[in-house]
Amino acid sequence: MNKTPDSNQPIGIFDSGIGGLTVVKAVMKKLPHENVIYFGDTAHVPYGTKSDQAINRFSAEITRFLIKHDVKMILIACNSVSAVAKETVTSNAGSIPVLDVITAGTQAAIATGSKSIGVIGTLATIGSGAYERSLRQRNNQLQIKSKACPLLVPLAEEGWTDNEVAKNTLSLYLSEFMQNNIDSIILGCTHYPLFTSTLQALFNNRAVTIIDSADSIAEMAQNLLVRHKLINTQTSRGHFNCFVSDRPQRFRELSERFLGRPVPDVQIVNLA
Amino acid sequence: MNKTPDSNQPIGIFDSGIGGLTVVKAVMKKLPHENVIYFGDTAHVPYGTKSDQAINRFSAEITRFLIKHDVKMILIACNSVSAVAKETVTSNAGSIPVLDVITAGTQAAIATGSKSIGVIGTLATIGSGAYERSLRQRNNQLQIKSKACPLLVPLAEEGWTDNEVAKNTLSLYLSEFMQNNIDSIILGCTHYPLFTSTLQALFNNRAVTIIDSADSIAEMAQNLLVRHKLINTQTSRGHFNCFVSDRPQRFRELSERFLGRPVPDVQIVNLA
Repeated sequence: MNKTPDSNQPIGIFDSGIGGLTVVKAVMKKLPHENVIYFGDTAHVPYGTKSDQAINRFSAEITRFLIKHDVKMILIACNSVSAVAKETVTSNAGSIPVLDVITAGTQAAIATGSKSIGVIGTLATIGSGAYERSLRQRNNQLQIKSKACPLLVPLAEEGWTDNEVAKNTLSLYLSEFMQNNIDSIILGCTHYPLFTSTLQALFNNRAVTIIDSADSIAEMAQNLLVRHKLINTQTSRGHFNCFVSDRPQRFRELSERFLGRPVPDVQIVNLA
Repeated sequence: MNKTPDSNQPIGIFDSGIGGLTVVKAVMKKLPHENVIYFGDTAHVPYGTKSDQAINRFSAEITRFLIKHDVKMILIACNSVSAVAKETVTSNAGSIPVLDVITAGTQAAIATGSKSIGVIGTLATIGSGAYERSLRQRNNQLQIKSKACPLLVPLAEEGWTDNEVAKNTLSLYLSEFMQNNIDSIILGCTHYPLFTSTLQALFNNRAVTIIDSADSIAEMAQNLLVRHKLINTQTSRGHFNCFVSDRPQRFRELSERFLGRPVPDVQIVNLA
């Protein structure tokens, strides 16, 4: 199993569903020559309302699937998995490096120099307290407010990201952030970058930095590949292979909203 | 397996998650002496965005689980299952009778004498066309409009059933119903009864009948038990046993909203 890694091996990226395509998009932009393999666990989506035990079980299976597909690195694009199952992924990945969106988002937030940080995410991510712990490890003087926003994923999938319903929902969820002079907001769910401009409008003339962990994890991946001399040297664009555990057709239909272009070929795999 | 049924056996009721407790509530009201066993497939919820294949696989497993618990009748409280997997449930149930919410809701709508019926439900239920087919079989002169409303389940679980977000969402989803003189609306999802008063307010001075299939299936169940001489003759209240495939704690927390009282004991079962 422990063969020498080869730069032509793909980067494995996974999420509970389609949101992780925002990470694929960021990786493709920064690392256009890398081969990428994606797994979206659409049979179990959303993880945000599932238990830690279930999320760990699903994550172990997906990690083994990616390892079988010979990846050189794994990016956990799912915040719920990053929050409660990173150890499971790492232990199943052996010597393959694993990066996660929570560490990436936290590092980016710290780098802004913010004193007062807001975190939004699913019930599982916020309930886990993982962002808060990760931020406090790096700076225990920070003011941190967290808020679970379970309606944002279905709103994003409905395409309602800037209508009245989206605006009212964000304004209800974020009323405490607005009263507390939050100066940056971590988007703790891969669906949330679709609300970036609505969020900016909501905070209108106040200086609030929106932190998109998709960009942050793509940058971490690049640094790690450079350090390990594993940057793909092919001159053509990398291949993209996409797998889901249910409803490939719906995934294909929604994919453009998240990836910026449709995914032509989505294969179905039944892991359990 | 084919022993003579006994009136003391429980009624089995299942759903993809918690919404089916609205059916349990209606059954308990109409048939207070019946023992009831409930299964909520919270590891896979929501079914509304899953494929027909996946819903059939989940439904077969749940049916076998209920049969093992010696039920005398099965009520499919899930519209997605009623739409795409009733055959699977029936064939796995052997001689045990199976009722479903779509047949129940359709019969109730026909009984109102409505000429113009609106149906709302999840993507899977509406996409299947099952209500439309079931209505047309009984009256092919009906005017029928169907609309998938994927945001209503997360809104109900958030407890947002009558705030501005709920009102705007319903008004966006139902604008076509309002323009088309719909005279009754079938709530094609077990979460939707929580929006009944908001819906009534939306249609304010127009005469629109809201059809709640939880009440309709409870009535069908009563009729069938009477016909088969299987009404439980015990004088005490029936027992209630509740099983889920994930997150019993969250299920317990949300249960009061759907059942009218909390479920004291929720057991976890891993079917697959």
